[in-house]
Amino acid sequence: MEITQIVLASRPKGNPTLEIFRFEKAELPALQEGQVLLEPLYISVDPYMRGRMNDAKSYTPPFQVDAPLEGGVIAKVVESKSEALQSGDVVLGALPWATQTVAEARKLQKIDTNLAPASYYLGILGMPGLTAYFGLLDIGQPKEGETVVVSGAAGAVGMVVGQIAKLKGCRVVGLAGSDEKADLLKKEFGYDEVINYKTTQNLRADLKAACPNGVDVYFDNVGGEITDAVISLINFHARLIICGQIAHYNDQQPQLGPRFLPLILTRSALIKGFIVSNYHARFPEAMQQLATWVKEGKLHYQETILEGFEKLPEAFLGLFTGQNQGKMLVKV
Amino acid sequence: MEITQIVLASRPKGNPTLEIFRFEKAELPALQEGQVLLEPLYISVDPYMRGRMNDAKSYTPPFQVDAPLEGGVIAKVVESKSEALQSGDVVLGALPWATQTVAEARKLQKIDTNLAPASYYLGILGMPGLTAYFGLLDIGQPKEGETVVVSGAAGAVGMVVGQIAKLKGCRVVGLAGSDEKADLLKKEFGYDEVINYKTTQNLRADLKAACPNGVDVYFDNVGGEITDAVISLINFHARLIICGQIAHYNDQQPQLGPRFLPLILTRSALIKGFIVSNYHARFPEAMQQLATWVKEGKLHYQETILEGFEKLPEAFLGLFTGQNQGKMLVKV
Repeated sequence: MEITQIVLASRPKGNPTLEIFRFEKAELPALQEGQVLLEPLYISVDPYMRGRMNDAKSYTPPFQVDAPLEGGVIAKVVESKSEALQSGDVVLGALPWATQTVAEARKLQKIDTNLAPASYYLGILGMPGLTAYFGLLDIGQPKEGETVVVSGAAGAVGMVVGQIAKLKGCRVVGLAGSDEKADLLKKEFGYDEVINYKTTQNLRADLKAACPNGVDVYFDNVGGEITDAVISLINFHARLIICGQIAHYNDQQPQLGPRFLPLILTRSALIKGFIVSNYHARFPEAMQQLATWVKEGKLHYQETILEGFEKLPEAFLGLFTGQNQGKMLVKV
Repeated sequence: MEITQIVLASRPKGNPTLEIFRFEKAELPALQEGQVLLEPLYISVDPYMRGRMNDAKSYTPPFQVDAPLEGGVIAKVVESKSEALQSGDVVLGALPWATQTVAEARKLQKIDTNLAPASYYLGILGMPGLTAYFGLLDIGQPKEGETVVVSGAAGAVGMVVGQIAKLKGCRVVGLAGSDEKADLLKKEFGYDEVINYKTTQNLRADLKAACPNGVDVYFDNVGGEITDAVISLINFHARLIICGQIAHYNDQQPQLGPRFLPLILTRSALIKGFIVSNYHARFPEAMQQLATWVKEGKLHYQETILEGFEKLPEAFLGLFTGQNQGKMLVKV
């Protein structure tokens, strides 16, 4: 059976461009025992995928040049040679960017589309939601009345972080890249203050005004000068959660920034990098809590969905220019 | 009664010099109920005191210009108007740099000079020893077979850190500023490798060779380029203990250095600043363990002792040029 897939044509140097993607035809192998034939419904694009495009040691192995890209996909089973799944089931898996694919049933997770729309399992009930949950609650340990700052606040993770911090009784300040995002975060997601880092005349001054009691918890999705400014305001025993550094994913060499370890010392502060898979054993607990909050209307959710398999490269590139409000997805 | 004291003549700009100290005569007030008259035996000089010379928010209030400097002092009680202490007792306290002083008995800790020499209570059984103990064990949590790197390894804290790490079965690599210190650390203190950061031609290459399995725990007393080099070698789940940043205490403005948060992210690493007083409630446990190790010969100790009250400024300045092997003290 002929399919279309998207392969990594070449490793990006600095900012990725459309040229790093190549659409190509391929033949699917025949279905073997224990396998299912899948058609994607939603394909996720996520910032961490940029790291896998480099030929560098990281927490996930690099993508191979001329091999299909892969990531989180919600797919429908169209044919099954496994007892575990049947035609019509909807599953979540780490799957190639392809119009159809053959996968081992045991590597897929069947999802309940009665509990929430299928696409939610790539966002608030999936990797980004779990990332927000564990990063904020396990590392950040926000306490009532504390100030929590979130960079990349309008992204798939940041949007959830701010809402959970509000549920915990914190003052929540976000950084986002447009006034439209800032309005959305304040009106729909309960942020107390949002700074548009692209238009501010003085980021430090605006942050200081937004955080009159300093910063207790910082959830960092971005890095760079935003993070420099936040660190300058940290309180004693502050917790800094390093979840993403999208400002640096396209760096071709290490960048210079202000040295802040003297401040980390005098403030007895904590910095912790993490990836959500560190918490794999606790995913069920978090999924249940997130689903409950969504059902109770305590967590809102927003997606930016592009339609059509051919939009995948554009959707991915849009992550780095802030085209998304909330989770960026492609509906196939 | 007339005494001599050393006051802060002016706040240092950048590197402190002899000009910031002024010796002056003063009159001691009459002894009140609950107070004791003290004569110092040993006066401690410590890197953290540099921070108190700035007029800046930190974990200890700044020294005042024209007021006596103060720090850790072992003193003998020469007259007592307190039931808690009697003439001849030896005490530890936070006391002024003065040839005699009057202090509240309740703010002093009587020490047992049968257990260890009096000066040890300013070092291995005092603030530096406790700092090494809690920083390494509580934050670093070294496991057998892991690689522990210590900067400022020949200092009062570093010397103890390396030995405790060896007791825990780790490979221990130190950074020190002379071949003499490097020899001492290897021969007397059990370090596996020590790099002379002043003479190395390629710090990163030497560190990499000394840490073939990467760095699991980094105990940082120094900061700057040494820390940059160590961070480039950290393993997944590395723990970085920020105890001192002596390379930066004389900075007049924030310095630039390589941005390392992307690496902290991909390695799921921890950075934790701390000050020993965070662990105040657990001091007795640590004192007992350290004293036991010293008594059993498992922890060795070394001091650099200058003789004479008038040597205090020189001793303090010597901390920043690495004049000390182990704990720097003045014997009065």
